[in-house]
Amino acid sequence: MQEATDLFIRHFKFWDKLTESQKDLLNQHTRTVHYQKGTQVHRGPLDCIGVLLIKSGQLRVYTLSEDGREVTLYRLFDEDIAILSASCTLDEVTFEVYIDAEEDTEALLTDAGAIRSLLDANIYARCYAYEKASRCLSEMLWKLQQILFLSADRRLAIFLMEESEKLGSDEIHLTHEQIARYMGTAREVVSRLVKYFTQEGLVKGARGKLTILDKKALQEIAGM
Amino acid sequence: MQEATDLFIRHFKFWDKLTESQKDLLNQHTRTVHYQKGTQVHRGPLDCIGVLLIKSGQLRVYTLSEDGREVTLYRLFDEDIAILSASCTLDEVTFEVYIDAEEDTEALLTDAGAIRSLLDANIYARCYAYEKASRCLSEMLWKLQQILFLSADRRLAIFLMEESEKLGSDEIHLTHEQIARYMGTAREVVSRLVKYFTQEGLVKGARGKLTILDKKALQEIAGM
Repeated sequence: MQEATDLFIRHFKFWDKLTESQKDLLNQHTRTVHYQKGTQVHRGPLDCIGVLLIKSGQLRVYTLSEDGREVTLYRLFDEDIAILSASCTLDEVTFEVYIDAEEDTEALLTDAGAIRSLLDANIYARCYAYEKASRCLSEMLWKLQQILFLSADRRLAIFLMEESEKLGSDEIHLTHEQIARYMGTAREVVSRLVKYFTQEGLVKGARGKLTILDKKALQEIAGM
Repeated sequence: MQEATDLFIRHFKFWDKLTESQKDLLNQHTRTVHYQKGTQVHRGPLDCIGVLLIKSGQLRVYTLSEDGREVTLYRLFDEDIAILSASCTLDEVTFEVYIDAEEDTEALLTDAGAIRSLLDANIYARCYAYEKASRCLSEMLWKLQQILFLSADRRLAIFLMEESEKLGSDEIHLTHEQIARYMGTAREVVSRLVKYFTQEGLVKGARGKLTILDKKALQEIAGM
């Protein structure tokens, strides 16, 4: 799979430390996968699919409480690598994440068995995997800390500003339920805050849609 | 420093992968340090003291919000290793922690400069450091997630049960302010919950002290 090799060379800085048979192993155990929008890609401790290298689309990485509450941790786009979908091969990584396809997504998947053999046999590959994991885990900690320490109004303001920037639009097509899920809070909290933001003239709400009216005031609440 | 070498051999699984001069480097840049109870050992992004190997005492690792709220992440006891006090040498670890001495503590400190040279020169030492960091970061994530997802009453019940087990006593000598800090919540929340627990006959409160009266009921709230 020449395409895989080219991507591996570009992304895996340990590539030139591999033996020829280790390179073959990776190539032979890598295949192209397609996930339809809305598909569950990786279900925490229930799965260990392997390492994903995203070619196009969008994956959402999140954590899940026992009673079903979600917190979005980060998103993966073109050429990003998902290492935590192979966390079963990393004994020191004990935190499990869930991954869904937020858009139709195409990726290269290297299966967990091959990854485990490689990490056991090659210290450079192993070190790369743990460095990558450390970066992900650090960013997830930062995110959870933000959520834990911030007041809900500030979190909603930040969420709306970020979402609007990402979309390049002042219209955000999400229900209160969906926003609550992204923020890791309850729907009631979002509804109460949206009501307050509406009264203050910051946003205008309609069914399944929020329009930002006063960006400057929102930015102030967000502390941006 | 023969004592240091003995401890390193026991704790650093990469020791036999080091050259003689790398072993010398570690030994020459390691010294015994003493921290009095209450001392700030490591102040997040302001410090990079190096790697600590605890000989006796207790260190508390915590995170801190901009407005001064703390959340205790974990504690280090005899023969534990603090790697995140050398996080400046680990470029992929971007989450900063604070460390205080909770008891008078004696430790071996290997300075950050020597650690950085070693991690740059030796892939086994580097991989060990990132594995260790991944474990710490995973556990911290688990802790923050628990706090984020649990209701405050359950968190207080868990805290009281854990504290009582650790002390081997039903009497917990902490103020509401201190308990709030350990739990990462506000003092008012703890006071309200303690009042409720008292009314239910679960605990008895006095100035700076809480006595557990009904362990079984607390366990049920804790979901243990």
